[in-house]
Amino acid sequence: MNVAIKERYLFSKEIAKKAGEAALNFYLNRDKLEIECKKGEQQDLVSIADKTVENIIKEALKERFPDDGFLGEESGADHLEQQFCWVVDPIDGTSPFLYGLHAWCISIAVLYKQEIVSGVVFDVQHNELFHAMKGQGAFLNDKPISTASAVSLKEGLMGLGVSHRVHPSTFTPIMHQILLDGGMFIRNGSGALMLAYVAAGRLIGYFEPHINAWDTFAAILLINEAGGKTNNFMENDGLLKGNYILATSSEELFNTLSHMRDSFS
Amino acid sequence: MNVAIKERYLFSKEIAKKAGEAALNFYLNRDKLEIECKKGEQQDLVSIADKTVENIIKEALKERFPDDGFLGEESGADHLEQQFCWVVDPIDGTSPFLYGLHAWCISIAVLYKQEIVSGVVFDVQHNELFHAMKGQGAFLNDKPISTASAVSLKEGLMGLGVSHRVHPSTFTPIMHQILLDGGMFIRNGSGALMLAYVAAGRLIGYFEPHINAWDTFAAILLINEAGGKTNNFMENDGLLKGNYILATSSEELFNTLSHMRDSFS
Repeated sequence: MNVAIKERYLFSKEIAKKAGEAALNFYLNRDKLEIECKKGEQQDLVSIADKTVENIIKEALKERFPDDGFLGEESGADHLEQQFCWVVDPIDGTSPFLYGLHAWCISIAVLYKQEIVSGVVFDVQHNELFHAMKGQGAFLNDKPISTASAVSLKEGLMGLGVSHRVHPSTFTPIMHQILLDGGMFIRNGSGALMLAYVAAGRLIGYFEPHINAWDTFAAILLINEAGGKTNNFMENDGLLKGNYILATSSEELFNTLSHMRDSFS
Repeated sequence: MNVAIKERYLFSKEIAKKAGEAALNFYLNRDKLEIECKKGEQQDLVSIADKTVENIIKEALKERFPDDGFLGEESGADHLEQQFCWVVDPIDGTSPFLYGLHAWCISIAVLYKQEIVSGVVFDVQHNELFHAMKGQGAFLNDKPISTASAVSLKEGLMGLGVSHRVHPSTFTPIMHQILLDGGMFIRNGSGALMLAYVAAGRLIGYFEPHINAWDTFAAILLINEAGGKTNNFMENDGLLKGNYILATSSEELFNTLSHMRDSFS
Protein backbone atom coordinates (compact mmCIF):
# COMPACT_ATOMS: atom_id res chain seq x y z
CA MET A 1 0.00 0.00 0.00
CA ASN A 2 2.94 2.33 0.68
CA VAL A 3 3.77 2.28 -3.02
CA ALA A 4 0.29 3.45 -3.95
CA ILE A 5 0.47 6.19 -1.31
CA LYS A 6 3.92 7.29 -2.40
CA GLU A 7 2.84 7.52 -6.04
CA ARG A 8 0.09 9.89 -5.00
CA TYR A 9 2.36 11.88 -2.68
CA LEU A 10 4.89 12.43 -5.47
CA PHE A 11 2.13 13.30 -7.92
CA SER A 12 0.65 15.79 -5.41
CA LYS A 13 3.89 17.73 -5.38
CA GLU A 14 4.10 17.77 -9.17
CA ILE A 15 0.52 18.86 -9.70
CA ALA A 16 0.73 21.47 -6.91
CA LYS A 17 3.60 23.09 -8.77
CA LYS A 18 1.73 23.03 -12.06
CA ALA A 19 -1.43 24.39 -10.45
CA GLY A 20 0.67 26.98 -8.64
CA GLU A 21 2.05 28.34 -11.88
CA ALA A 22 -1.44 28.68 -13.31
CA ALA A 23 -2.67 30.40 -10.15
CA LEU A 24 0.28 32.78 -10.14
CA ASN A 25 -0.45 33.73 -13.71
CA PHE A 26 -4.03 34.62 -12.71
CA TYR A 27 -2.75 36.51 -9.66
CA LEU A 28 -0.39 38.64 -11.67
CA ASN A 29 -3.26 39.46 -14.03
CA ARG A 30 -5.95 39.75 -11.38
CA ASP A 31 -7.11 43.17 -12.54
CA LYS A 32 -8.59 41.43 -15.54
CA LEU A 33 -10.27 38.64 -13.58
CA GLU A 34 -13.99 38.48 -13.53
CA ILE A 35 -15.10 38.34 -9.97
CA GLU A 36 -18.38 36.89 -8.96
CA CYS A 37 -19.86 36.72 -5.50
CA LYS A 38 -20.98 33.45 -3.94
CA LYS A 39 -24.28 33.56 -2.08
CA GLY A 40 -24.36 37.32 -2.30
CA GLU A 41 -21.62 37.70 0.31
CA GLN A 42 -19.02 40.30 -0.61
CA GLN A 43 -16.39 38.62 1.56
CA ASP A 44 -16.84 35.14 0.12
CA LEU A 45 -15.34 35.83 -3.23
CA VAL A 46 -14.74 33.18 -5.80
CA SER A 47 -12.95 33.80 -8.99
CA ILE A 48 -12.48 32.26 -12.35
CA ALA A 49 -8.99 31.47 -11.07
CA ASP A 50 -10.28 29.17 -8.34
CA LYS A 51 -12.35 27.17 -10.78
CA THR A 52 -9.68 26.97 -13.46
CA VAL A 53 -6.98 25.85 -11.03
CA GLU A 54 -9.24 23.20 -9.49
CA ASN A 55 -10.01 21.92 -12.97
CA ILE A 56 -6.32 21.59 -13.81
CA ILE A 57 -5.87 19.40 -10.73
CA LYS A 58 -9.05 17.41 -11.27
CA GLU A 59 -8.30 16.67 -14.92
CA ALA A 60 -4.75 15.57 -14.11
CA LEU A 61 -6.09 13.22 -11.44
CA LYS A 62 -8.76 11.79 -13.74
CA GLU A 63 -6.03 10.83 -16.15
CA ARG A 64 -3.53 9.43 -13.66
CA PHE A 65 -5.78 8.00 -10.93
CA PRO A 66 -9.18 7.65 -12.62
CA ASP A 67 -10.75 5.57 -9.86
CA ASP A 68 -9.87 7.87 -6.95
CA GLY A 69 -12.52 9.96 -5.23
CA PHE A 70 -12.37 13.74 -5.15
CA LEU A 71 -13.54 16.55 -2.89
CA GLY A 72 -12.80 20.06 -4.05
CA GLU A 73 -13.83 23.47 -2.78
CA GLU A 74 -15.30 24.44 -6.13
CA SER A 75 -16.69 21.23 -7.59
CA GLY A 76 -17.76 19.36 -4.46
CA ALA A 77 -17.71 15.62 -3.72
CA ASP A 78 -17.22 12.89 -6.31
CA HIS A 79 -16.95 9.15 -5.49
CA LEU A 80 -15.91 9.58 -1.88
CA GLU A 81 -16.65 5.87 -1.32
CA GLN A 82 -13.30 5.07 -2.94
CA GLN A 83 -10.33 3.95 -0.80
CA PHE A 84 -8.23 6.80 -2.13
CA CYS A 85 -9.73 10.27 -2.13
CA TRP A 86 -8.22 13.65 -2.95
CA VAL A 87 -9.20 16.72 -0.96
CA VAL A 88 -8.27 19.92 -2.76
CA ASP A 89 -8.42 23.66 -2.24
CA PRO A 90 -7.20 25.19 -5.50
CA ILE A 91 -6.61 28.63 -3.94
CA ASP A 92 -6.80 28.93 -0.19
CA GLY A 93 -6.92 32.60 0.70
CA THR A 94 -9.14 33.80 -2.14
CA SER A 95 -9.54 37.25 -0.57
CA PRO A 96 -5.80 37.88 -0.21
CA PHE A 97 -5.39 36.52 -3.75
CA LEU A 98 -7.97 38.88 -5.23
CA TYR A 99 -6.85 41.92 -3.27
CA GLY A 100 -3.19 41.45 -4.15
CA LEU A 101 -1.97 40.37 -0.72
CA HIS A 102 0.78 37.79 -0.40
CA ALA A 103 -0.90 35.04 1.65
CA TRP A 104 -2.54 32.36 -0.48
CA CYS A 105 -1.64 28.81 -1.42
CA ILE A 106 -2.73 25.54 -2.96
CA SER A 107 -3.67 22.65 -0.68
CA ILE A 108 -3.80 19.01 -1.79
CA ALA A 109 -4.42 16.08 0.56
CA VAL A 110 -4.87 12.37 -0.07
CA LEU A 111 -7.03 10.13 2.09
CA TYR A 112 -6.66 6.37 2.28
CA LYS A 113 -9.65 4.75 3.97
CA GLN A 114 -10.60 8.09 5.59
CA GLU A 115 -7.10 8.70 6.94
CA ILE A 116 -4.85 11.49 5.65
CA VAL A 117 -1.75 9.91 4.13
CA SER A 118 -0.32 12.74 2.02
CA GLY A 119 -0.42 16.52 2.40
CA VAL A 120 0.98 19.29 0.23
CA VAL A 121 0.62 23.04 0.74
CA PHE A 122 2.26 25.16 -1.94
CA ASP A 123 2.92 28.88 -1.56
CA VAL A 124 4.01 29.63 -5.09
CA GLN A 125 4.79 33.32 -4.53
CA HIS A 126 7.50 32.43 -2.02
CA ASN A 127 8.39 29.12 -3.62
CA GLU A 128 7.60 27.28 -0.41
CA LEU A 129 6.37 23.72 -0.85
CA PHE A 130 5.31 22.17 2.46
CA HIS A 131 4.83 18.42 2.11
CA ALA A 132 4.41 15.26 4.15
CA MET A 133 3.64 11.61 3.64
CA LYS A 134 2.30 9.70 6.62
CA GLY A 135 5.10 8.27 8.75
CA GLN A 136 7.83 9.96 6.73
CA GLY A 137 8.13 13.37 8.41
CA ALA A 138 7.28 16.84 7.15
CA PHE A 139 9.34 19.01 4.84
CA LEU A 140 9.59 22.56 3.52
CA ASN A 141 11.10 22.16 0.07
CA ASP A 142 14.02 19.81 0.80
CA LYS A 143 14.40 20.53 4.51
CA PRO A 144 12.76 18.58 7.35
CA ILE A 145 10.55 20.81 9.52
CA SER A 146 9.28 20.52 13.05
CA THR A 147 6.85 22.48 15.18
CA ALA A 148 8.04 25.14 17.64
CA SER A 149 8.97 24.14 21.17
CA ALA A 150 6.37 26.52 22.66
CA VAL A 151 4.32 25.26 25.59
CA SER A 152 2.73 28.62 26.49
CA LEU A 153 1.00 31.41 24.55
CA LYS A 154 3.76 33.87 25.45
CA GLU A 155 6.33 31.96 23.44
CA GLY A 156 5.31 32.93 19.93
CA LEU A 157 2.55 33.91 17.53
CA MET A 158 -0.76 32.11 17.15
CA GLY A 159 -2.57 31.99 13.85
CA LEU A 160 -6.31 32.66 14.00
CA GLY A 161 -9.07 32.34 11.47
CA VAL A 162 -12.69 33.37 11.34
CA SER A 163 -15.36 33.40 8.66
CA HIS A 164 -18.96 34.49 8.25
CA ARG A 165 -20.07 30.83 8.29
CA VAL A 166 -20.18 31.13 12.08
CA HIS A 167 -21.18 33.87 14.52
CA PRO A 168 -18.31 36.11 15.62
CA SER A 169 -19.02 35.08 19.22
CA THR A 170 -17.40 31.70 18.46
CA PHE A 171 -14.17 33.58 17.77
CA THR A 172 -13.93 36.82 19.73
CA PRO A 173 -13.73 35.52 23.34
CA ILE A 174 -10.91 33.14 22.45
CA MET A 175 -8.95 35.83 20.62
CA HIS A 176 -9.47 38.16 23.58
CA GLN A 177 -8.32 35.55 26.09
CA ILE A 178 -5.19 34.84 24.06
CA LEU A 179 -4.33 38.55 24.27
CA LEU A 180 -5.16 38.68 27.99
CA ASP A 181 -2.84 35.73 28.58
CA GLY A 182 0.05 37.61 26.94
CA GLY A 183 -0.23 35.90 23.57
CA MET A 184 -0.33 37.49 20.14
CA PHE A 185 -1.83 36.43 16.83
CA ILE A 186 -1.83 36.90 13.10
CA ARG A 187 -4.63 36.33 10.61
CA ASN A 188 -3.25 36.45 7.11
CA GLY A 189 -6.39 35.25 5.34
CA SER A 190 -5.19 31.75 4.39
CA GLY A 191 -5.97 29.01 6.91
CA ALA A 192 -4.00 26.37 5.03
CA LEU A 193 -0.91 28.57 4.95
CA MET A 194 -1.10 29.51 8.64
CA LEU A 195 -1.52 25.81 9.48
CA ALA A 196 1.54 24.98 7.37
CA TYR A 197 3.39 27.66 9.36
CA VAL A 198 2.51 25.77 12.54
CA ALA A 199 4.17 22.68 11.05
CA ALA A 200 7.22 24.76 10.14
CA GLY A 201 7.53 26.23 13.66
CA ARG A 202 6.75 29.78 12.51
CA LEU A 203 3.50 29.90 14.46
CA ILE A 204 2.92 28.12 17.75
CA GLY A 205 -0.64 27.16 16.93
CA TYR A 206 -3.80 27.82 14.96
CA PHE A 207 -7.45 28.09 15.88
CA GLU A 208 -10.55 28.66 13.78
CA PRO A 209 -14.11 27.99 14.96
CA HIS A 210 -15.20 26.54 11.62
CA ILE A 211 -13.14 25.58 8.62
CA ASN A 212 -13.62 23.20 5.71
CA ALA A 213 -11.82 19.92 5.10
CA TRP A 214 -10.09 21.16 1.95
CA ASP A 215 -8.51 24.06 3.90
CA THR A 216 -7.05 21.84 6.58
CA PHE A 217 -6.37 18.24 5.56
CA ALA A 218 -2.96 18.69 3.94
CA ALA A 219 -1.77 20.85 6.83
CA ILE A 220 -3.15 18.52 9.50
CA LEU A 221 -0.82 15.80 8.23
CA LEU A 222 2.04 18.31 8.01
CA ILE A 223 1.52 19.31 11.65
CA ASN A 224 1.23 15.76 12.94
CA GLU A 225 4.31 14.66 11.01
CA ALA A 226 6.18 17.74 12.32
CA GLY A 227 5.50 16.82 15.95
CA GLY A 228 2.45 18.96 16.69
CA LYS A 229 -1.05 18.15 17.86
CA THR A 230 -4.43 18.64 16.19
CA ASN A 231 -8.04 17.89 17.14
CA ASN A 232 -9.89 14.99 15.52
CA PHE A 233 -11.27 16.86 12.52
CA MET A 234 -13.17 13.81 11.21
CA GLU A 235 -15.56 13.91 14.17
CA ASN A 236 -19.10 15.10 13.51
CA ASP A 237 -18.83 14.54 9.77
CA GLY A 238 -15.92 16.97 9.46
CA LEU A 239 -15.04 15.75 5.98
CA LEU A 240 -18.29 17.03 4.48
CA LYS A 241 -19.51 19.58 7.03
CA GLY A 242 -16.24 21.10 8.19
CA ASN A 243 -15.30 21.44 11.85
CA TYR A 244 -13.36 23.62 14.22
CA ILE A 245 -9.60 23.31 13.99
CA LEU A 246 -7.15 23.53 16.86
CA ALA A 247 -3.53 22.82 16.09
CA THR A 248 -0.57 23.48 18.35
CA SER A 249 3.15 22.92 18.72
CA SER A 250 2.72 20.96 21.97
CA GLU A 251 0.35 18.93 24.11
CA GLU A 252 0.50 21.61 26.85
CA LEU A 253 -0.55 24.38 24.51
CA PHE A 254 -3.24 22.16 23.03
CA ASN A 255 -4.70 21.61 26.49
CA THR A 256 -4.56 25.33 27.32
CA LEU A 257 -6.44 26.29 24.17
CA SER A 258 -8.80 23.36 24.35
CA HIS A 259 -9.89 24.35 27.87
CA MET A 260 -10.21 27.94 26.73
CA ARG A 261 -12.47 26.88 23.88
CA ASP A 262 -14.59 24.70 26.19
CA SER A 263 -14.99 27.52 28.70
CA PHE A 264 -16.46 29.83 26.06
CA SER A 265 -18.82 27.38 24.39
CA MET B 1 11.63 74.39 -0.17
CA ASN B 2 10.33 71.81 -2.62
CA VAL B 3 13.88 71.14 -3.75
CA ALA B 4 15.01 70.36 -0.20
CA ILE B 5 12.01 68.08 0.24
CA LYS B 6 12.55 66.33 -3.07
CA GLU B 7 16.22 65.70 -2.27
CA ARG B 8 15.15 63.93 0.90
CA TYR B 9 12.35 62.01 -0.84
CA LEU B 10 14.75 60.68 -3.47
CA PHE B 11 17.33 59.85 -0.83
CA SER B 12 14.66 58.02 1.23
CA LYS B 13 14.01 55.67 -1.65
CA GLU B 14 17.71 55.00 -2.16
CA ILE B 15 18.45 54.37 1.48
CA ALA B 16 15.32 52.23 1.92
CA LYS B 17 16.62 49.93 -0.81
CA LYS B 18 20.06 49.76 0.76
CA ALA B 19 18.61 49.13 4.21
CA GLY B 20 16.24 46.58 2.70
CA GLU B 21 19.09 44.54 1.29
CA ALA B 22 20.83 44.48 4.66
CA ALA B 23 17.59 43.47 6.40
CA LEU B 24 16.93 40.73 3.86
CA ASN B 25 20.38 39.34 4.44
CA PHE B 26 19.66 39.14 8.17
CA TYR B 27 16.25 37.60 7.47
CA LEU B 28 17.68 34.85 5.32
CA ASN B 29 20.18 34.09 8.09
CA ARG B 30 17.80 34.60 10.98
CA ASP B 31 18.59 31.24 12.58
CA LYS B 32 21.94 32.69 13.50
CA LEU B 33 20.57 35.95 14.89
CA GLU B 34 20.95 36.63 18.54
CA ILE B 35 17.59 37.52 19.89
CA GLU B 36 17.15 39.59 22.96
CA CYS B 37 13.95 40.52 24.66
CA LYS B 38 12.98 44.12 25.36
CA LYS B 39 11.47 44.76 28.79
CA GLY B 40 11.21 41.04 29.46
CA GLU B 41 8.30 40.68 27.05
CA GLN B 42 8.57 37.63 24.82
CA GLN B 43 6.37 39.22 22.16
CA ASP B 44 8.30 42.47 21.91
CA LEU B 45 11.35 41.08 20.25
CA VAL B 46 14.20 43.18 19.06
CA SER B 47 17.06 41.80 17.13
CA ILE B 48 20.53 42.69 16.14
CA ALA B 49 19.03 43.17 12.70
CA ASP B 50 16.79 46.05 13.84
CA LYS B 51 19.69 47.91 15.36
CA THR B 52 22.08 47.31 12.49
CA VAL B 53 19.57 48.39 9.86
CA GLU B 54 18.66 51.55 11.80
CA ASN B 55 22.36 52.37 12.06
CA ILE B 56 22.83 52.03 8.31
CA ILE B 57 20.06 54.58 7.77
CA LYS B 58 21.23 56.90 10.56
CA GLU B 59 24.85 56.95 9.39
CA ALA B 60 23.84 57.64 5.80
CA LEU B 61 21.67 60.55 6.96
CA LYS B 62 24.44 61.96 9.17
CA GLU B 63 26.65 62.13 6.14
CA ARG B 64 24.11 63.52 3.67
CA PHE B 65 21.86 65.67 5.89
CA PRO B 66 23.94 66.22 9.03
CA ASP B 67 21.69 68.91 10.49
CA ASP B 68 18.39 67.01 10.22
CA GLY B 69 16.68 65.63 13.31
CA PHE B 70 16.05 61.91 13.75
CA LEU B 71 13.55 59.68 15.52
CA GLY B 72 14.13 55.95 15.26
CA GLU B 73 12.50 52.99 16.92
CA GLU B 74 15.80 51.72 18.23
CA SER B 75 17.85 54.82 18.97
CA GLY B 76 15.14 57.29 19.98
CA ALA B 77 14.95 61.06 19.40
CA ASP B 78 17.84 63.26 18.29
CA HIS B 79 17.53 67.01 17.53
CA LEU B 80 13.80 67.00 16.85
CA GLU B 81 13.84 70.81 17.05
CA GLN B 82 15.21 70.87 13.49
CA GLN B 83 12.98 71.88 10.56
CA PHE B 84 13.63 68.58 8.83
CA CYS B 85 13.30 65.39 10.86
CA TRP B 86 13.46 61.76 9.83
CA VAL B 87 11.18 59.21 11.42
CA VAL B 88 12.39 55.67 10.87
CA ASP B 89 11.37 52.13 11.64
CA PRO B 90 14.23 49.94 10.42
CA ILE B 91 12.15 46.75 10.50
CA ASP B 92 8.42 47.06 11.04
CA GLY B 93 7.06 43.64 11.82
CA THR B 94 9.91 42.33 13.95
CA SER B 95 7.92 39.27 15.02
CA PRO B 96 7.07 38.17 11.45
CA PHE B 97 10.71 38.88 10.56
CA LEU B 98 12.11 36.72 13.33
CA TYR B 99 9.62 33.89 12.89
CA GLY B 100 10.17 33.69 9.14
CA LEU B 101 6.81 35.10 8.03
CA HIS B 102 6.58 37.30 4.95
CA ALA B 103 5.13 40.54 6.34
CA TRP B 104 7.77 43.06 7.35
CA CYS B 105 9.11 46.25 5.85
CA ILE B 106 11.21 49.36 6.28
CA SER B 107 9.47 52.69 6.95
CA ILE B 108 11.11 56.08 6.41
CA ALA B 109 9.26 59.39 6.76
CA VAL B 110 10.46 62.98 6.56
CA LEU B 111 8.87 65.83 8.53
CA TYR B 112 9.19 69.48 7.59
CA LYS B 113 8.05 71.76 10.41
CA GLN B 114 6.10 68.88 11.99
CA GLU B 115 4.32 67.99 8.76
CA ILE B 116 4.96 64.73 6.87
CA VAL B 117 6.36 65.61 3.45
CA SER B 118 7.88 62.29 2.32
CA GLY B 119 6.97 58.68 3.04
CA VAL B 120 8.56 55.44 1.91
CA VAL B 121 7.57 51.89 2.90
CA PHE B 122 9.74 49.17 1.39
CA ASP B 123 8.77 45.51 1.36
CA VAL B 124 12.02 44.07 0.11
CA GLN B 125 10.85 40.44 -0.04
CA HIS B 126 8.22 41.32 -2.63
CA ASN B 127 10.19 44.18 -4.15
CA GLU B 128 7.36 46.59 -3.40
CA LEU B 129 8.44 50.17 -2.79
CA PHE B 130 5.50 52.36 -1.72
CA HIS B 131 6.43 56.04 -1.87
CA ALA B 132 4.92 59.49 -1.77
CA MET B 133 6.01 63.12 -1.63
CA LYS B 134 3.49 65.63 -0.35
CA GLY B 135 1.32 66.96 -3.17
CA GLN B 136 2.79 64.60 -5.76
CA GLY B 137 0.61 61.49 -5.37
CA ALA B 138 1.45 58.02 -4.11
CA PHE B 139 3.22 55.24 -5.99
CA LEU B 140 3.96 51.53 -5.79
CA ASN B 141 7.26 51.17 -7.61
CA ASP B 142 6.57 53.16 -10.79
CA LYS B 143 2.78 52.99 -10.75
CA PRO B 144 0.43 55.56 -9.20
CA ILE B 145 -1.78 54.05 -6.51
CA SER B 146 -5.09 55.06 -5.01
CA THR B 147 -7.21 53.83 -2.15
CA ALA B 148 -10.14 51.45 -2.70
CA SER B 149 -13.57 52.85 -3.49
CA ALA B 150 -15.09 51.14 -0.42
CA VAL B 151 -17.58 53.09 1.63
CA SER B 152 -18.79 50.19 3.80
CA LEU B 153 -17.09 47.41 5.77
CA LYS B 154 -18.60 44.76 3.51
CA GLU B 155 -16.64 45.93 0.52
CA GLY B 156 -13.20 44.58 1.40
CA LEU B 157 -10.70 43.64 4.06
CA MET B 158 -9.72 45.81 7.01
CA GLY B 159 -6.26 45.68 8.51
CA LEU B 160 -6.12 45.57 12.30
CA GLY B 161 -3.30 45.88 14.77
CA VAL B 162 -2.93 45.37 18.48
CA SER B 163 -0.02 45.30 20.89
CA HIS B 164 0.60 44.69 24.57
CA ARG B 165 1.18 48.41 25.09
CA VAL B 166 -2.58 48.73 25.55
CA HIS B 167 -5.27 46.59 27.17
CA PRO B 168 -6.97 44.16 24.78
CA SER B 169 -10.29 45.84 25.61
CA THR B 170 -9.22 48.79 23.44
CA PHE B 171 -9.15 46.39 20.48
CA THR B 172 -11.56 43.50 20.92
CA PRO B 173 -14.94 45.30 20.81
CA ILE B 174 -14.03 47.08 17.58
CA MET B 175 -12.83 43.90 15.92
CA HIS B 176 -16.01 42.15 17.04
CA GLN B 177 -18.23 44.93 15.71
CA ILE B 178 -16.44 44.86 12.35
CA LEU B 179 -17.28 41.14 12.10
CA LEU B 180 -20.87 41.72 13.24
CA ASP B 181 -21.26 44.36 10.54
CA GLY B 182 -20.22 41.85 7.87
CA GLY B 183 -16.63 43.04 7.60
CA MET B 184 -13.48 40.95 7.66
CA PHE B 185 -9.91 41.71 8.72
CA ILE B 186 -6.31 40.65 8.48
CA ARG B 187 -3.49 41.23 10.96
CA ASN B 188 -0.20 40.37 9.32
CA GLY B 189 2.05 41.69 12.07
CA SER B 190 3.36 44.79 10.28
CA GLY B 191 1.34 47.98 10.83
CA ALA B 192 3.36 49.99 8.32
CA LEU B 193 2.80 47.40 5.62
CA MET B 194 -0.94 47.07 6.25
CA LEU B 195 -1.21 50.88 6.16
CA ALA B 196 0.68 50.92 2.84
CA TYR B 197 -1.85 48.35 1.60
CA VAL B 198 -4.62 50.82 2.43
CA ALA B 199 -2.89 53.38 0.20
CA ALA B 200 -2.62 50.77 -2.56
CA GLY B 201 -6.32 49.83 -2.34
CA ARG B 202 -5.60 46.28 -1.13
CA LEU B 203 -7.20 46.94 2.26
CA ILE B 204 -10.12 49.29 2.80
CA GLY B 205 -8.82 50.60 6.11
CA TYR B 206 -6.63 50.09 9.14
CA PHE B 207 -7.20 50.50 12.87
CA GLU B 208 -4.89 50.05 15.83
CA PRO B 209 -5.60 51.38 19.32
CA HIS B 210 -1.98 52.45 19.90
CA ILE B 211 0.89 52.62 17.48
CA ASN B 212 4.14 54.56 17.34
CA ALA B 213 5.02 57.42 15.01
CA TRP B 214 7.77 55.45 13.25
CA ASP B 215 5.28 52.71 12.31
CA THR B 216 2.80 55.10 10.74
CA PHE B 217 4.25 58.36 9.43
CA ALA B 218 5.40 57.18 6.02
CA ALA B 219 2.14 55.35 5.41
CA ILE B 220 -0.02 58.25 6.62
CA LEU B 221 1.37 60.38 3.79
CA LEU B 222 0.93 57.47 1.35
CA ILE B 223 -2.73 57.15 2.31
CA ASN B 224 -3.45 60.85 2.15
CA GLU B 225 -1.72 61.18 -1.21
CA ALA B 226 -3.65 58.12 -2.45
CA GLY B 227 -7.01 59.68 -1.62
CA GLY B 228 -7.72 58.13 1.77
CA LYS B 229 -8.40 59.60 5.17
CA THR B 230 -6.47 59.35 8.45
CA ASN B 231 -6.93 60.75 11.95
CA ASN B 232 -4.73 63.59 13.19
CA PHE B 233 -1.91 61.48 14.59
CA MET B 234 0.03 64.50 15.89
CA GLU B 235 -2.67 65.24 18.47
CA ASN B 236 -1.82 64.47 22.09
CA ASP B 237 1.93 64.40 21.45
CA GLY B 238 1.58 61.54 18.94
CA LEU B 239 5.09 62.07 17.61
CA LEU B 240 6.71 61.05 20.87
CA LYS B 241 3.98 59.12 22.67
CA GLY B 242 2.27 57.36 19.79
CA ASN B 243 -1.48 57.48 19.24
CA TYR B 244 -4.33 55.44 17.84
CA ILE B 245 -4.45 55.18 14.07
CA LEU B 246 -7.55 55.06 11.94
CA ALA B 247 -7.07 55.12 8.20
CA THR B 248 -9.69 54.42 5.57
CA SER B 249 -10.37 54.48 1.87
CA SER B 250 -13.22 56.97 2.23
CA GLU B 251 -14.80 59.63 4.41
CA GLU B 252 -17.90 57.41 4.90
CA LEU B 253 -15.89 54.49 6.19
CA PHE B 254 -13.84 56.82 8.37
CA ASN B 255 -17.01 58.09 10.01
CA THR B 256 -18.37 54.57 10.52
CA LEU B 257 -15.21 53.40 12.26
CA SER B 258 -14.73 56.62 14.14
CA HIS B 259 -18.22 56.36 15.64
CA MET B 260 -17.57 52.72 16.42
CA ARG B 261 -14.39 53.64 18.25
CA ASP B 262 -16.12 56.43 20.19
CA SER B 263 -18.96 54.13 21.22
CA PHE B 264 -16.53 51.66 22.83
CA SER B 265 -14.30 54.13 24.63
